[in-house]
Amino acid sequence: MSSVKYVIGVDGGGTKTEAVAFDGDGEEWSRGVSGFGNLVVDPEQAAQNIEEAIDRCREPLKGLDCAYIYLGLAGIEGTPHRADLEQRLKERFRTRISLANDAMIAHAASLEGKDGILTISGTGSISWGVCRGRVAFTGGWGHLLGDEGSGYWIAIEAFRQMIREEEESRTRGPLSRALLRRLDIDRVHDIKTLIYESSKAEIAAVVPIVAEEADGGDPFSRSLLERAGRELAEQTVRLHRKLDFQRRVAIGLKGGVLLSVSPVREAFVQWVKESIPQADFVEQDVPSTKGAYFLAIQELQKHG
Amino acid sequence: MSSVKYVIGVDGGGTKTEAVAFDGDGEEWSRGVSGFGNLVVDPEQAAQNIEEAIDRCREPLKGLDCAYIYLGLAGIEGTPHRADLEQRLKERFRTRISLANDAMIAHAASLEGKDGILTISGTGSISWGVCRGRVAFTGGWGHLLGDEGSGYWIAIEAFRQMIREEEESRTRGPLSRALLRRLDIDRVHDIKTLIYESSKAEIAAVVPIVAEEADGGDPFSRSLLERAGRELAEQTVRLHRKLDFQRRVAIGLKGGVLLSVSPVREAFVQWVKESIPQADFVEQDVPSTKGAYFLAIQELQKHG
Repeated sequence: MSSVKYVIGVDGGGTKTEAVAFDGDGEEWSRGVSGFGNLVVDPEQAAQNIEEAIDRCREPLKGLDCAYIYLGLAGIEGTPHRADLEQRLKERFRTRISLANDAMIAHAASLEGKDGILTISGTGSISWGVCRGRVAFTGGWGHLLGDEGSGYWIAIEAFRQMIREEEESRTRGPLSRALLRRLDIDRVHDIKTLIYESSKAEIAAVVPIVAEEADGGDPFSRSLLERAGRELAEQTVRLHRKLDFQRRVAIGLKGGVLLSVSPVREAFVQWVKESIPQADFVEQDVPSTKGAYFLAIQELQKHG
Repeated sequence: MSSVKYVIGVDGGGTKTEAVAFDGDGEEWSRGVSGFGNLVVDPEQAAQNIEEAIDRCREPLKGLDCAYIYLGLAGIEGTPHRADLEQRLKERFRTRISLANDAMIAHAASLEGKDGILTISGTGSISWGVCRGRVAFTGGWGHLLGDEGSGYWIAIEAFRQMIREEEESRTRGPLSRALLRRLDIDRVHDIKTLIYESSKAEIAAVVPIVAEEADGGDPFSRSLLERAGRELAEQTVRLHRKLDFQRRVAIGLKGGVLLSVSPVREAFVQWVKESIPQADFVEQDVPSTKGAYFLAIQELQKHG
């Protein structure tokens, strides 16, 4: 790649889309931000937001040559709009374009484009693996089919415990008391309205309350977070079995639940080590656009 | 109640609202049907539909005196519109009005207004109990907080088994093969799109496939249906513990899953008997509007 060329990495999520231009050494040259880039939310508006982020990123770089645009978009799988979007972006920007899942570019960011597994637990959860060109995943089935170990899952399990206490006329535990107090709810029955009228992210936002109660010594909160870590570890090990890794394997951690909630992270690391003693854990939190950059460079090197 | 008086029972659900007028002996005099009566779907449209069903039911009874309108409405709990609706119906129909949950009138229909527990498993599940004026329930928390033993729950568990087989690179079991064939899906990944774009009722509609595979000898399908029956039994027993029943207790069964899927019903009866040997099972499928009639008559007798 000559010095006047650059590549753009795009990270399109449920609330915003970021496009970042990098030179051949991975230095950031410019950046554009716009609204959501998740095709499931609204495919036409997402496509417009993605174009807008790229336009804003390219504006300061007029006259220079964009060699590649690599996009990682939430909800790209299972939409019938993928091929249309690719065609539309190719015509609009007249350069080489690749579309991938948002987990794919997060993986490349964390593991610097190398082989290994990235396990993410934020509102949802997924394990994404790349091994000598083969790509596979476990989890990522969403809240209805079970994203065990995710923030949403932890929150729902906390509310289910509250329901069990209510139905079995047991004394309310410290976590239930903390949740009712912090959410300003009197009756357990009112959590039903709360859950069905809130977004998944809003529900997952109670995880810090669980973490506080665990820190404060509540055994149920602690064991719930450890269960989350173990679920994420098992998901990671299932993926490790599917892909034919060499002796050592890099395992990246990402997402607020896995990185910031210590009992989850500690249980995760312990249970992964049990099954994969050769694991090297990577906890660096690199923006996903940088992962798109690594993947763009790989494509340019592969295909010239 | 004099012979020129009648009462109306209303059953408002997610797709239709039925209003039936009964004379003092419980004989049906007339009937009106309209669209959904679930306040959660759209409170104003639901209110209009409810009024329309009652209007249609009253049309052939002009000149006669309506002594009571008893309504059982899905989603009446947790909506802020209950008081408004009651006021609106009182002004419009100028008679005594009671609003209750749809499970309450289903209970009264099955147990002829007497004490006992009704356990319902259709798309969702709930156990509703009445004991000497006290009303309580277990379950009914909906698909996100867990309506174990419901048709939706059985379907999701079937799809989760398919996911486990896929993630663990196991051979597909008979149920997974049947589901993929009958839903015309090639890749397990496509069930994600299917689940997130379908209604709960559409998802629960795969239960007959599970029942067929269980009949055909598939151990997983059979044990899944038995687990559903056991979950419903445990929910029923939790409610029995909450309410202070006398020696014998009537336990009604309702809903397609509990009444029509034999392994579910058999496991349910067996597990309930284990904890409540004095249970009398009631399997008659009486329309819920008749339950509203029983409750209206009780109100008239109580308050004159």
